[in-house]
Amino acid sequence: MVGGGQLARMTHQAAISLGVPLRVLARDPGESAAQVSADVRIGDERSLDDLRAFAKDCDVLTWDHEHVPQELVRALEEAGTACRPGSGALLHAQDKLVMRERLTSFGVPCPAFARVPSDAPPAFLEAFAREHGLPLVLKATRGGYDGKGVWVLDALDRDAAELVDRLLGEGVDLLVEEHVAFRRELAALVARSPYGQGAAYPIVETVQRDGICHEVISPAPGLDDDTAAEAQRLALDIAEHLGVTGLLAVELFQTDSGLVVNELAMRPHNSGHWTIEGARTSQFEQHVRAVLDLPLGSTEATAPHVVMVNVLGGDDPDVYSRYVHVMAHDPGVRVHMYGKQVRPGRKIGHVTALGDDLDEVRERARHAADYLRWGPALKEGA
Amino acid sequence: MVGGGQLARMTHQAAISLGVPLRVLARDPGESAAQVSADVRIGDERSLDDLRAFAKDCDVLTWDHEHVPQELVRALEEAGTACRPGSGALLHAQDKLVMRERLTSFGVPCPAFARVPSDAPPAFLEAFAREHGLPLVLKATRGGYDGKGVWVLDALDRDAAELVDRLLGEGVDLLVEEHVAFRRELAALVARSPYGQGAAYPIVETVQRDGICHEVISPAPGLDDDTAAEAQRLALDIAEHLGVTGLLAVELFQTDSGLVVNELAMRPHNSGHWTIEGARTSQFEQHVRAVLDLPLGSTEATAPHVVMVNVLGGDDPDVYSRYVHVMAHDPGVRVHMYGKQVRPGRKIGHVTALGDDLDEVRERARHAADYLRWGPALKEGA
Repeated sequence: MVGGGQLARMTHQAAISLGVPLRVLARDPGESAAQVSADVRIGDERSLDDLRAFAKDCDVLTWDHEHVPQELVRALEEAGTACRPGSGALLHAQDKLVMRERLTSFGVPCPAFARVPSDAPPAFLEAFAREHGLPLVLKATRGGYDGKGVWVLDALDRDAAELVDRLLGEGVDLLVEEHVAFRRELAALVARSPYGQGAAYPIVETVQRDGICHEVISPAPGLDDDTAAEAQRLALDIAEHLGVTGLLAVELFQTDSGLVVNELAMRPHNSGHWTIEGARTSQFEQHVRAVLDLPLGSTEATAPHVVMVNVLGGDDPDVYSRYVHVMAHDPGVRVHMYGKQVRPGRKIGHVTALGDDLDEVRERARHAADYLRWGPALKEGA
Repeated sequence: MVGGGQLARMTHQAAISLGVPLRVLARDPGESAAQVSADVRIGDERSLDDLRAFAKDCDVLTWDHEHVPQELVRALEEAGTACRPGSGALLHAQDKLVMRERLTSFGVPCPAFARVPSDAPPAFLEAFAREHGLPLVLKATRGGYDGKGVWVLDALDRDAAELVDRLLGEGVDLLVEEHVAFRRELAALVARSPYGQGAAYPIVETVQRDGICHEVISPAPGLDDDTAAEAQRLALDIAEHLGVTGLLAVELFQTDSGLVVNELAMRPHNSGHWTIEGARTSQFEQHVRAVLDLPLGSTEATAPHVVMVNVLGGDDPDVYSRYVHVMAHDPGVRVHMYGKQVRPGRKIGHVTALGDDLDEVRERARHAADYLRWGPALKEGA
């Protein structure tokens, strides 16, 4: 697995059970997965030499993130390395413009979008706004994550013009999209193997804060069966059309007029962390099974309601001193820490609660995550 | 954790979630836990120098097996290393005679037992047999596991006399016990923290074959609530009396006249592997929490019935070629492989199934384990 973040860390945990040796390419031995894995190679995923050396003797290469340059993945494939997902699929998780063009070509509902030409953007954006209204959503076609690379323009004023000029001046390729008036955000997580087997997890609701996934509720509360099935079908169709092998996470807007696709990711995804305890097969094991072309595991839920809340860093770096409270307060809550240095607002872990009563489960997960972030200050602040 | 077997391997998986760095002392880099852990030291747990070097900078030392010499554990403790469980408790998992004497001293039901004096054993055993009947069970007081170090003597004939003479001649300390006519075997798994918190898992039935744990059924089918509570109470009492920190597994005989203690183990135990998917907190996480004096996790079951079956090595070493069948046949069965070289009869992994119907769950777990051992030959043979 190329990339040493928390996704590789949790994939390693799953691979251990399967008896599958997972090699990790990390830039630094201190990275989340590098801290816990036996077979870590230090290198840069933007270097073909490093990738080649890393891939030697690996049966299959897979990715912890989308940021491996497309041309390097193609070079590896041309040299005979099995890359899953492959470059052709991966491109759609790397380039938002390519993704939009492709998805709309086979009828997947997307927001209205257009490439921002590098000349005369003010007139262009004004024309787009006349047709689709304000606000507009400006996106870097490549390289964004967790809200980075996305700007909501409430007005086409001087600030907006300056931002666009600056980005284009820096050589950033831009895409503009209509702002979708959604009721809520959902996510569909599916797996697809080279053999063509597909498996779909229950559809979840995701709650974002400041562009970062904050909370995931499985299944999405009150979602009707038809819409849930439609979302699963949409994700399985996209996986098949794009030839995805491994996991595909489809972030969706639920609107008054139906589902609209927001983003794609082709790897284990934050919206699927709940599956570690909440589904018979975790997304991490599922990804390993899919990329190795093993039969896929059951996606059945283990409880009526499962809630995952991300743990963000607070001001006090010693998060472990707050374990005692969280564990004593709720012996059933599951804590996952990523071994990352605490920085305010940084994702450093997640917690999962599950049970029969959604409100209670949600409160338990939120309390644990908030306490791990803020400690005793929580009581005063919240 | 001292010892690099599968218990350390699965403890590492649990420690990753907690963000707790686990260092492993293995004799060989190919050992089960050494294959997957980031922080592996190679050394011999029978060497005080190796143990001292290993323990440097560790907050707490714990054990993957009972075979660290008692005097070395004491030496570490005298030098200020926190050993959990400590030497005083551990002795009762290391020496069956000390264990029997201690347990009976505070009223725990045990089989009748006696130390075999190193002189004139024939007359001694005959007297013991006259009082307690045949067969007799002969045990090495130290060093046995998985049926090794235990001999059932059906008659006090010449073979038996020769065996006893040979063992005593080799310097093996022996214990003789009455053969308990049990209905079935149960196991009680509890955790105890230095703070004194205790937690008890549901009582399981264990099915042995050739002295090796073959199958574990949770909860023990048809066990009445009173007996289950008594077994949990017994294990918690033993943990408290012996000052155990970490896990304590108590192997029990269920007889017509009540429960009788067979063996003790102070570590994650084969009879608790089902907890990985079958309980809210796995025994491995529970052990880490207990030895670090963190509050203990919920032992609640995640399904009405959970069955774990050990995977033993068959004749064909390539167990992974049989994954496809097992995973395709049953997408819900959970497979755990230990990365061990396949040898006929060796424990190389386990499988777990869970659900609402015990017969079905049992059949699923058995089929998966048998197929992983025998492959397509299973259909002809079984």
